[in-house]
Amino acid sequence: MPNRTISKLTLYGDKVSGNCLKTLWTARHCGLDFDWIDVDIMKGETRTDAYLGVNPTGQVPMARWPDGRVLTQSNAIMIWMAEEAGNSLIPADAFARAQMHSWLFWEQYNHEPAIAVRRFRKLYLGLPDAEIDPALLTKGHAALAMMEMQLAHTDYLVGKGLTLADIALVAYTRVAPQGGFELAAYPGVRRWVHRIETDLEISHALEAA
Amino acid sequence: MPNRTISKLTLYGDKVSGNCLKTLWTARHCGLDFDWIDVDIMKGETRTDAYLGVNPTGQVPMARWPDGRVLTQSNAIMIWMAEEAGNSLIPADAFARAQMHSWLFWEQYNHEPAIAVRRFRKLYLGLPDAEIDPALLTKGHAALAMMEMQLAHTDYLVGKGLTLADIALVAYTRVAPQGGFELAAYPGVRRWVHRIETDLEISHALEAA
Repeated sequence: MPNRTISKLTLYGDKVSGNCLKTLWTARHCGLDFDWIDVDIMKGETRTDAYLGVNPTGQVPMARWPDGRVLTQSNAIMIWMAEEAGNSLIPADAFARAQMHSWLFWEQYNHEPAIAVRRFRKLYLGLPDAEIDPALLTKGHAALAMMEMQLAHTDYLVGKGLTLADIALVAYTRVAPQGGFELAAYPGVRRWVHRIETDLEISHALEAA
Repeated sequence: MPNRTISKLTLYGDKVSGNCLKTLWTARHCGLDFDWIDVDIMKGETRTDAYLGVNPTGQVPMARWPDGRVLTQSNAIMIWMAEEAGNSLIPADAFARAQMHSWLFWEQYNHEPAIAVRRFRKLYLGLPDAEIDPALLTKGHAALAMMEMQLAHTDYLVGKGLTLADIALVAYTRVAPQGGFELAAYPGVRRWVHRIETDLEISHALEAA
Protein backbone atom coordinates (compact mmCIF):
# COMPACT_ATOMS: atom_id res chain seq x y z
CA MET A 1 0.00 0.00 0.00
CA PRO A 2 2.73 2.56 0.78
CA ASN A 3 4.09 2.02 -2.74
CA ARG A 4 1.06 3.41 -4.48
CA THR A 5 1.52 6.73 -6.23
CA ILE A 6 0.45 9.64 -4.07
CA SER A 7 -0.53 13.05 -5.34
CA LYS A 8 -0.76 15.05 -2.12
CA LEU A 9 0.28 14.90 1.52
CA THR A 10 -0.53 11.43 2.77
CA LEU A 11 -0.77 10.38 6.39
CA TYR A 12 -0.26 6.76 7.37
CA GLY A 13 -1.60 5.72 10.75
CA ASP A 14 -3.55 3.35 12.94
CA LYS A 15 -6.66 4.92 14.45
CA VAL A 16 -6.30 2.97 17.70
CA SER A 17 -3.02 4.85 18.29
CA GLY A 18 -3.26 8.21 20.01
CA ASN A 19 -0.01 9.26 18.36
CA CYS A 20 -1.60 8.69 14.95
CA LEU A 21 -4.88 10.36 15.87
CA LYS A 22 -3.00 13.50 16.91
CA THR A 23 -1.85 14.01 13.34
CA LEU A 24 -5.30 13.27 11.88
CA TRP A 25 -7.03 15.75 14.23
CA THR A 26 -4.39 18.42 13.56
CA ALA A 27 -4.60 17.99 9.79
CA ARG A 28 -8.40 18.39 9.94
CA HIS A 29 -8.23 21.35 12.32
CA CYS A 30 -5.70 23.03 10.01
CA GLY A 31 -7.89 22.41 6.96
CA LEU A 32 -5.05 20.66 5.13
CA ASP A 33 -5.69 18.72 1.94
CA PHE A 34 -4.52 15.18 2.73
CA ASP A 35 -5.19 11.50 2.27
CA TRP A 36 -5.29 9.06 5.18
CA ILE A 37 -4.12 5.48 4.81
CA ASP A 38 -4.93 2.99 7.55
CA VAL A 39 -1.98 0.89 8.72
CA ASP A 40 -2.88 -1.84 11.21
CA ILE A 41 -0.05 -2.20 13.73
CA MET A 42 -1.43 -5.37 15.35
CA LYS A 43 -1.66 -7.06 11.94
CA GLY A 44 2.02 -6.27 11.34
CA GLU A 45 1.38 -3.77 8.55
CA THR A 46 4.25 -1.54 9.77
CA ARG A 47 6.64 -4.50 9.38
CA THR A 48 6.01 -5.35 5.73
CA ASP A 49 8.74 -4.86 3.15
CA ALA A 50 6.55 -2.31 1.38
CA TYR A 51 6.15 -0.17 4.50
CA LEU A 52 9.77 -0.51 5.63
CA GLY A 53 10.91 0.35 2.10
CA VAL A 54 9.28 3.76 2.44
CA ASN A 55 9.96 4.19 6.15
CA PRO A 56 12.87 2.13 7.56
CA THR A 57 11.90 3.08 11.13
CA GLY A 58 8.66 1.12 10.75
CA GLN A 59 6.92 3.82 12.75
CA VAL A 60 3.46 5.29 12.50
CA PRO A 61 2.33 7.96 12.11
CA MET A 62 4.19 8.88 8.97
CA ALA A 63 3.65 11.84 6.65
CA ARG A 64 4.66 11.37 3.03
CA TRP A 65 4.86 13.90 0.24
CA PRO A 66 4.41 13.18 -3.50
CA ASP A 67 8.14 13.73 -4.13
CA GLY A 68 8.98 10.90 -1.72
CA ARG A 69 9.95 12.87 1.36
CA VAL A 70 8.89 11.20 4.58
CA LEU A 71 8.50 12.54 8.12
CA THR A 72 7.97 10.58 11.35
CA GLN A 73 7.31 11.52 14.99
CA SER A 74 3.75 12.64 15.70
CA ASN A 75 4.66 15.91 17.38
CA ALA A 76 7.06 16.89 14.59
CA ILE A 77 4.35 16.20 12.00
CA MET A 78 1.88 18.33 13.98
CA ILE A 79 4.32 21.24 14.19
CA TRP A 80 4.90 21.07 10.43
CA MET A 81 1.13 21.15 9.83
CA ALA A 82 0.45 24.10 12.12
CA GLU A 83 3.37 26.06 10.65
CA GLU A 84 2.05 25.31 7.16
CA ALA A 85 -1.45 26.46 8.14
CA GLY A 86 -0.07 29.49 9.98
CA ASN A 87 -2.77 29.28 12.62
CA SER A 88 -2.84 29.81 16.38
CA LEU A 89 -2.11 26.17 17.28
CA ILE A 90 1.45 27.47 17.65
CA PRO A 91 1.43 30.58 19.88
CA ALA A 92 2.88 33.74 18.35
CA ASP A 93 4.44 34.76 21.67
CA ALA A 94 7.96 33.33 22.06
CA PHE A 95 7.62 32.25 25.69
CA ALA A 96 4.16 30.72 25.16
CA ARG A 97 5.58 28.86 22.18
CA ALA A 98 8.42 27.60 24.39
CA GLN A 99 5.89 26.39 26.95
CA MET A 100 4.06 24.56 24.19
CA HIS A 101 7.31 22.87 23.12
CA SER A 102 7.98 21.98 26.75
CA TRP A 103 4.62 20.19 27.05
CA LEU A 104 5.25 18.37 23.74
CA PHE A 105 8.60 16.98 24.88
CA TRP A 106 7.19 16.20 28.33
CA GLU A 107 4.35 14.30 26.66
CA GLN A 108 6.76 12.01 24.84
CA TYR A 109 9.05 11.50 27.85
CA ASN A 110 6.77 11.44 30.90
CA HIS A 111 3.19 10.87 29.75
CA GLU A 112 3.10 8.57 26.73
CA PRO A 113 5.63 5.97 27.98
CA ALA A 114 3.48 5.44 31.07
CA ILE A 115 -0.15 6.01 30.11
CA ALA A 116 -0.13 4.85 26.49
CA VAL A 117 2.15 1.93 27.26
CA ARG A 118 0.05 0.66 30.18
CA ARG A 119 -3.11 1.01 28.06
CA PHE A 120 -1.46 -0.97 25.26
CA ARG A 121 -0.47 -3.79 27.59
CA LYS A 122 -3.90 -3.99 29.23
CA LEU A 123 -6.15 -3.37 26.25
CA TYR A 124 -4.27 -4.80 23.28
CA LEU A 125 -1.99 -7.40 24.81
CA GLY A 126 -4.63 -8.33 27.41
CA LEU A 127 -2.10 -8.62 30.23
CA PRO A 128 -3.39 -8.86 33.80
CA ASP A 129 -2.30 -6.04 36.13
CA ALA A 130 0.09 -8.33 38.00
CA GLU A 131 2.12 -8.80 34.82
CA ILE A 132 2.47 -5.08 34.13
CA ASP A 133 5.40 -3.14 35.62
CA PRO A 134 3.88 -1.28 38.62
CA ALA A 135 6.15 1.70 37.87
CA LEU A 136 3.92 2.54 34.90
CA LEU A 137 0.97 3.23 37.22
CA THR A 138 3.06 5.45 39.50
CA LYS A 139 4.62 7.35 36.61
CA GLY A 140 1.28 7.79 34.85
CA HIS A 141 -0.42 9.21 37.93
CA ALA A 142 2.51 11.58 38.45
CA ALA A 143 1.94 12.83 34.89
CA LEU A 144 -1.80 13.30 35.47
CA ALA A 145 -1.10 15.15 38.74
CA MET A 146 1.26 17.48 36.86
CA MET A 147 -1.47 18.24 34.30
CA GLU A 148 -4.03 18.82 37.07
CA MET A 149 -1.67 21.35 38.71
CA GLN A 150 -2.04 23.43 35.51
CA LEU A 151 -5.60 22.60 34.48
CA ALA A 152 -7.15 23.24 37.89
CA HIS A 153 -6.48 26.90 37.07
CA THR A 154 -6.57 27.29 33.31
CA ASP A 155 -8.79 26.16 30.43
CA TYR A 156 -5.87 25.21 28.19
CA LEU A 157 -2.31 24.04 28.85
CA VAL A 158 -0.77 27.19 27.35
CA GLY A 159 -2.39 30.61 27.17
CA LYS A 160 -6.09 31.10 26.52
CA GLY A 161 -6.73 28.91 23.52
CA LEU A 162 -6.13 25.56 21.86
CA THR A 163 -2.51 24.75 20.99
CA LEU A 164 -0.63 21.66 19.85
CA ALA A 165 0.11 20.94 23.53
CA ASP A 166 -3.59 20.24 24.14
CA ILE A 167 -3.92 18.04 21.06
CA ALA A 168 -0.81 16.03 21.94
CA LEU A 169 -1.79 15.50 25.57
CA VAL A 170 -5.47 14.79 25.06
CA ALA A 171 -4.76 11.84 22.77
CA TYR A 172 -3.91 9.37 25.51
CA THR A 173 -5.40 11.27 28.49
CA ARG A 174 -8.94 10.81 27.15
CA VAL A 175 -8.45 7.04 27.02
CA ALA A 176 -6.35 6.81 30.20
CA PRO A 177 -9.12 4.83 32.01
CA GLN A 178 -8.55 2.04 29.45
CA GLY A 179 -5.05 1.86 30.89
CA GLY A 180 -6.37 1.63 34.44
CA PHE A 181 -5.91 5.31 35.23
CA GLU A 182 -9.10 6.56 36.91
CA LEU A 183 -9.52 10.30 36.41
CA ALA A 184 -11.91 11.06 39.31
CA ALA A 185 -9.06 12.67 41.29
CA TYR A 186 -8.29 15.05 38.42
CA PRO A 187 -11.40 17.24 37.89
CA GLY A 188 -9.47 19.91 35.99
CA VAL A 189 -8.11 17.30 33.62
CA ARG A 190 -11.61 15.87 33.07
CA ARG A 191 -13.09 19.28 32.23
CA TRP A 192 -10.17 19.97 29.90
CA VAL A 193 -10.57 16.63 28.09
CA HIS A 194 -14.22 17.50 27.37
CA ARG A 195 -13.25 21.00 26.21
CA ILE A 196 -10.50 19.83 23.83
CA GLU A 197 -12.71 17.07 22.40
CA THR A 198 -15.37 19.73 21.71
CA ASP A 199 -12.80 22.02 20.06
CA LEU A 200 -11.59 19.13 17.88
CA GLU A 201 -15.15 17.92 17.13
CA ILE A 202 -14.39 14.37 18.27
CA SER A 203 -16.38 12.05 20.53
CA HIS A 204 -16.40 12.42 24.31
CA ALA A 205 -14.46 9.36 25.39
CA LEU A 206 -14.85 9.72 29.16
CA GLU A 207 -18.64 10.01 28.99
CA ALA A 208 -18.82 7.03 26.62
CA ALA A 209 -16.73 4.79 28.90
CA MET B 1 20.10 28.82 45.80
CA PRO B 2 17.22 29.10 43.31
CA ASN B 3 15.71 31.81 45.56
CA ARG B 4 18.48 34.30 45.01
CA THR B 5 17.62 37.36 42.94
CA ILE B 6 18.51 36.94 39.30
CA SER B 7 19.06 39.74 36.84
CA LYS B 8 19.27 37.87 33.55
CA LEU B 9 18.48 34.49 32.03
CA THR B 10 19.69 31.85 34.47
CA LEU B 11 20.24 28.20 33.66
CA TYR B 12 20.15 25.60 36.41
CA GLY B 13 21.77 22.29 35.66
CA ASP B 14 24.08 19.45 36.60
CA LYS B 15 27.11 19.15 34.34
CA VAL B 16 27.14 15.37 34.55
CA SER B 17 23.72 15.39 32.81
CA GLY B 18 23.75 15.46 29.03
CA ASN B 19 20.32 17.07 29.06
CA CYS B 20 21.73 19.96 31.08
CA LEU B 21 24.90 20.26 28.98
CA LYS B 22 22.77 20.61 25.84
CA THR B 23 21.36 23.88 27.13
CA LEU B 24 24.78 25.15 28.26
CA TRP B 25 26.39 24.40 24.87
CA THR B 26 23.48 25.97 22.99
CA ALA B 27 23.51 29.11 25.12
CA ARG B 28 27.24 29.53 24.50
CA HIS B 29 26.92 28.79 20.77
CA CYS B 30 24.11 31.35 20.51
CA GLY B 31 26.18 33.97 22.36
CA LEU B 32 23.41 34.50 24.93
CA ASP B 33 24.05 36.47 28.10
CA PHE B 34 23.28 34.02 30.92
CA ASP B 35 24.29 32.79 34.35
CA TRP B 36 24.78 29.11 35.13
CA ILE B 37 23.94 27.66 38.54
CA ASP B 38 25.16 24.17 39.36
CA VAL B 39 22.52 21.88 40.85
CA ASP B 40 23.83 18.51 42.05
CA ILE B 41 21.20 15.85 41.34
CA MET B 42 22.97 13.10 43.29
CA LYS B 43 23.18 15.33 46.37
CA GLY B 44 19.40 15.86 46.18
CA GLU B 45 19.62 19.52 45.24
CA THR B 46 16.64 19.20 42.87
CA ARG B 47 14.52 17.94 45.79
CA THR B 48 15.02 20.82 48.22
CA ASP B 49 12.09 23.07 49.17
CA ALA B 50 13.93 26.02 47.62
CA TYR B 51 14.28 24.30 44.25
CA LEU B 52 10.80 22.79 44.22
CA GLY B 53 9.37 26.18 45.19
CA VAL B 54 10.67 27.62 41.93
CA ASN B 55 10.18 24.47 39.85
CA PRO B 56 7.59 22.01 41.17
CA THR B 57 8.65 19.40 38.61
CA GLY B 58 12.05 19.15 40.33
CA GLN B 59 13.63 18.80 36.89
CA VAL B 60 16.92 20.05 35.52
CA PRO B 61 17.75 21.73 33.28
CA MET B 62 15.62 24.76 34.07
CA ALA B 63 15.72 28.22 32.51
CA ARG B 64 14.55 31.10 34.69
CA TRP B 65 13.95 34.70 33.78
CA PRO B 66 14.24 37.69 36.14
CA ASP B 67 10.45 38.14 36.19
CA GLY B 68 10.02 34.64 37.62
CA ARG B 69 9.07 32.75 34.47
CA VAL B 70 10.46 29.23 34.35
CA LEU B 71 10.93 26.77 31.50
CA THR B 72 11.84 23.08 31.67
CA GLN B 73 12.64 20.37 29.09
CA SER B 74 16.08 20.62 27.56
CA ASN B 75 14.95 20.56 23.95
CA ALA B 76 12.29 23.24 24.53
CA ILE B 77 14.91 25.46 26.19
CA MET B 78 17.28 24.94 23.25
CA ILE B 79 14.57 25.86 20.73
CA TRP B 80 13.81 29.05 22.69
CA MET B 81 17.51 29.99 22.67
CA ALA B 82 18.02 29.38 18.95
CA GLU B 83 14.85 31.31 18.09
CA GLU B 84 16.03 34.17 20.31
CA ALA B 85 19.45 34.18 18.63
CA GLY B 86 17.90 33.85 15.19
CA ASN B 87 20.74 31.66 13.96
CA SER B 88 20.97 28.61 11.73
CA LEU B 89 20.66 26.05 14.56
CA ILE B 90 17.02 25.99 13.45
CA PRO B 91 16.87 25.47 9.66
CA ALA B 92 15.03 28.12 7.69
CA ASP B 93 13.57 25.53 5.31
CA ALA B 94 10.24 24.18 6.61
CA PHE B 95 10.90 20.52 5.83
CA ALA B 96 14.46 20.61 7.20
CA ARG B 97 13.05 22.24 10.35
CA ALA B 98 10.49 19.43 10.59
CA GLN B 99 13.28 16.86 10.29
CA MET B 100 15.10 18.61 13.10
CA HIS B 101 11.98 18.45 15.28
CA SER B 102 11.61 14.78 14.40
CA TRP B 103 15.15 14.01 15.65
CA LEU B 104 14.51 16.03 18.82
CA PHE B 105 11.38 14.05 19.72
CA TRP B 106 13.07 10.79 18.71
CA GLU B 107 15.99 11.67 21.00
CA GLN B 108 13.71 11.97 24.01
CA TYR B 109 11.65 8.86 23.19
CA ASN B 110 14.11 6.37 21.66
CA HIS B 111 17.65 7.47 22.49
CA GLU B 112 17.80 9.09 25.94
CA PRO B 113 15.60 6.53 27.78
CA ALA B 114 17.98 3.76 26.67
CA ILE B 115 21.47 5.25 26.40
CA ALA B 116 21.34 7.90 29.13
CA VAL B 117 19.41 5.62 31.48
CA ARG B 118 21.80 2.67 31.10
CA ARG B 119 24.78 5.02 31.61
CA PHE B 120 23.16 6.41 34.76
CA ARG B 121 22.59 2.94 36.19
CA LYS B 122 26.12 1.75 35.42
CA LEU B 123 28.13 4.88 36.14
CA TYR B 124 26.23 6.65 38.90
CA LEU B 125 24.29 3.87 40.61
CA GLY B 126 27.16 1.42 40.05
CA LEU B 127 24.83 -1.44 39.12
CA PRO B 128 26.36 -4.59 37.58
CA ASP B 129 25.13 -5.43 34.07
CA ALA B 130 23.10 -8.37 35.36
CA GLU B 131 20.92 -6.00 37.38
CA ILE B 132 20.18 -3.70 34.44
CA ASP B 133 17.17 -4.40 32.20
CA PRO B 134 18.68 -6.03 29.06
CA ALA B 135 16.09 -4.22 26.92
CA LEU B 136 18.05 -1.00 27.45
CA LEU B 137 21.04 -2.42 25.59
CA THR B 138 18.88 -3.60 22.67
CA LYS B 139 16.98 -0.34 22.45
CA GLY B 140 20.16 1.75 22.69
CA HIS B 141 21.88 -0.15 19.90
CA ALA B 142 18.77 0.21 17.73
CA ALA B 143 19.01 3.97 18.27
CA LEU B 144 22.71 4.04 17.37
CA ALA B 145 22.03 1.96 14.25
CA MET B 146 19.36 4.47 13.22
CA MET B 147 21.82 7.34 13.59
CA GLU B 148 24.47 5.40 11.63
CA MET B 149 21.97 4.91 8.78
CA GLN B 150 21.95 8.72 8.42
CA LEU B 151 25.51 9.60 9.42
CA ALA B 152 27.18 7.03 7.16
CA HIS B 153 26.09 9.38 4.35
CA THR B 154 25.94 12.91 5.78
CA ASP B 155 28.08 15.12 8.00
CA TYR B 156 25.14 16.38 10.05
CA LEU B 157 21.77 14.91 10.98
CA VAL B 158 19.83 17.53 9.01
CA GLY B 159 21.09 19.44 6.00
CA LYS B 160 24.68 20.58 5.63
CA GLY B 161 25.36 22.29 8.93
CA LEU B 162 24.99 22.13 12.71
CA THR B 163 21.43 22.17 14.03
CA LEU B 164 19.79 21.57 17.41
CA ALA B 165 19.36 17.92 16.35
CA ASP B 166 23.13 17.41 16.46
CA ILE B 167 23.50 19.14 19.83
CA ALA B 168 20.65 17.13 21.37
CA LEU B 169 21.90 13.79 20.08
CA VAL B 170 25.59 14.27 20.73
CA ALA B 171 25.05 14.86 24.44
CA TYR B 172 24.60 11.21 25.38
CA THR B 173 26.06 9.63 22.23
CA ARG B 174 29.57 10.93 23.05
CA VAL B 175 29.43 9.25 26.47
CA ALA B 176 27.55 6.13 25.30
CA PRO B 177 30.60 3.90 26.03
CA GLN B 178 30.15 4.81 29.72
CA GLY B 179 26.77 3.12 29.42
CA GLY B 180 28.32 0.02 27.90
CA PHE B 181 27.56 0.96 24.28
CA GLU B 182 30.69 0.37 22.22
CA LEU B 183 30.71 2.58 19.12
CA ALA B 184 33.16 0.61 16.96
CA ALA B 185 30.32 -0.65 14.77
CA TYR B 186 29.15 2.90 14.06
CA PRO B 187 31.98 4.68 12.21
CA GLY B 188 29.70 7.40 10.85
CA VAL B 189 28.47 8.15 14.35
CA ARG B 190 32.06 8.32 15.66
CA ARG B 191 33.13 10.78 12.96
CA TRP B 192 30.02 12.87 13.62
CA VAL B 193 30.64 12.95 17.39
CA HIS B 194 34.12 14.35 16.75
CA ARG B 195 32.76 16.88 14.25
CA ILE B 196 30.02 18.18 16.57
CA GLU B 197 32.40 18.39 19.54
CA THR B 198 34.74 20.48 17.36
CA ASP B 199 31.87 22.74 16.28
CA LEU B 200 30.82 23.21 19.92
CA GLU B 201 34.41 23.64 21.12
CA ILE B 202 34.09 20.94 23.77
CA SER B 203 36.42 18.06 24.62
CA HIS B 204 36.65 14.91 22.52
CA ALA B 205 35.07 12.36 24.84
CA LEU B 206 35.65 9.23 22.73
CA GLU B 207 39.39 9.90 22.33
CA ALA B 208 39.71 10.61 26.06
CA ALA B 209 37.99 7.38 27.08
